[in-house]
Amino acid sequence: MKVLIVHAHPEPRSLNGSLKDVAVETLEGAGHDVRVSDLYAMKWKAQVDADDFGAAAESPLRVVRNSGRAFERGELTADVLAEQEKLRWADTVIFQFPLWWYAMPAILKGWVDRVFTYGFGYGVGVHDDTRYGDRYGEGTLAGKRALLSVTVGGPEAHYTARGINGPIEDLLFPIHHGILYYPGIEALPPFVVYRVDRYTDEDFAVAAKAWRERLLTLETTAPIPFRRQNFGDYTMPSLRLKPGLERPGTSGFGLHVAG
Amino acid sequence: MKVLIVHAHPEPRSLNGSLKDVAVETLEGAGHDVRVSDLYAMKWKAQVDADDFGAAAESPLRVVRNSGRAFERGELTADVLAEQEKLRWADTVIFQFPLWWYAMPAILKGWVDRVFTYGFGYGVGVHDDTRYGDRYGEGTLAGKRALLSVTVGGPEAHYTARGINGPIEDLLFPIHHGILYYPGIEALPPFVVYRVDRYTDEDFAVAAKAWRERLLTLETTAPIPFRRQNFGDYTMPSLRLKPGLERPGTSGFGLHVAG
Repeated sequence: MKVLIVHAHPEPRSLNGSLKDVAVETLEGAGHDVRVSDLYAMKWKAQVDADDFGAAAESPLRVVRNSGRAFERGELTADVLAEQEKLRWADTVIFQFPLWWYAMPAILKGWVDRVFTYGFGYGVGVHDDTRYGDRYGEGTLAGKRALLSVTVGGPEAHYTARGINGPIEDLLFPIHHGILYYPGIEALPPFVVYRVDRYTDEDFAVAAKAWRERLLTLETTAPIPFRRQNFGDYTMPSLRLKPGLERPGTSGFGLHVAG
Repeated sequence: MKVLIVHAHPEPRSLNGSLKDVAVETLEGAGHDVRVSDLYAMKWKAQVDADDFGAAAESPLRVVRNSGRAFERGELTADVLAEQEKLRWADTVIFQFPLWWYAMPAILKGWVDRVFTYGFGYGVGVHDDTRYGDRYGEGTLAGKRALLSVTVGGPEAHYTARGINGPIEDLLFPIHHGILYYPGIEALPPFVVYRVDRYTDEDFAVAAKAWRERLLTLETTAPIPFRRQNFGDYTMPSLRLKPGLERPGTSGFGLHVAG
């Protein structure tokens, strides 16, 4: 495999930093090529602004339009171009981050906001009343696979079907489906480590063992079977799931996962 | 009302900037006190790192522990302290932002990550097997109300119950419930403007009228009736919703909204 690890924690000696190190060692030890984007070490700029769009930037700034112009003209900044090149190179992407406030840390969200430009991450393919783009299963990054490796403060029970925080699969759906699957990346089931605020060395040994096992079976892991947009499951132009396709008892985000 | 508007768009003349201006004018015109945190204008720092915790920062950095120490010792940075003071002052908070990749822009996520410190946004109250903190309806910001004013690229149909992006109320649940209600803020139903990539002046006139009406009725708008954590709806210590309490047909995030 060619694996890109996108890592988002400020402390190299943190649990997240250690899980990232385990991934590099394990994957390289198994003969895979690994590249790491350590966002804090790179001092990654998180906010989208006119500086992202070089000479193509207009005033007033229209983000979508200027993102597309800069992408087309090759006028994106060097940091964004480098990440797009890494994504094109990789066949597998691992995101290592702590779940802060039920979402990515800002620095990682800023990686998505800035790297997934118009023409690269979205705005790909025809958008009209008969076809709304190459997305959700198609797009620039189709054929690639990704996995979220996430650390969480609370216990697992709080993130189950009836748990107070909401089910972890629903909390991660906007990332799995809306960020990864949208430009074509297949999302693998996540690796989640719970209750990390009370973590001991013994807990880490258990988590590292489970993590190594996940890493060494990545190639044969089946992705979450999200429904593709353009293959008959959705009506046009509303893009609503057609009647009768839902699995019994599913609703909400779960509708978009096939049986 | 005392209203804090947290605004997150890089272009003052954008739709988001205009909706923020409408809010300031409308609310001040109705005699309310308004303060604005314009995150791009403030050059808000998005990423959490050791610089946030002043002299209290330890190495290796443990984010939760150091956040709590810096909060307790008054050693948070001036920008974070100023935002905490605005939140204590306000009785109503409006967040104005574009939905990028089904979530907040990074700069706004960084406002949450940095301002909602341990001891302020979380880590409030006793955490043990009989009580897991003052949160979800209790906490530092209990009694306050907030509203998300969000612009979205796609049409409304894509964000409905069977729509391909997922229902807008589920996409916003991690913010409404996980960020606002967690430290005690009641979340009002959001104001969402759809299909903004094809926006005309006529569309803006319609949206601005609807927005003014929402603003002038804020005080009498009922919040989303999320279930409080510590008032009998959840088992301890698992914090799962007790059997039989769900409304018929609800599952997932919807379980945590009372009838």
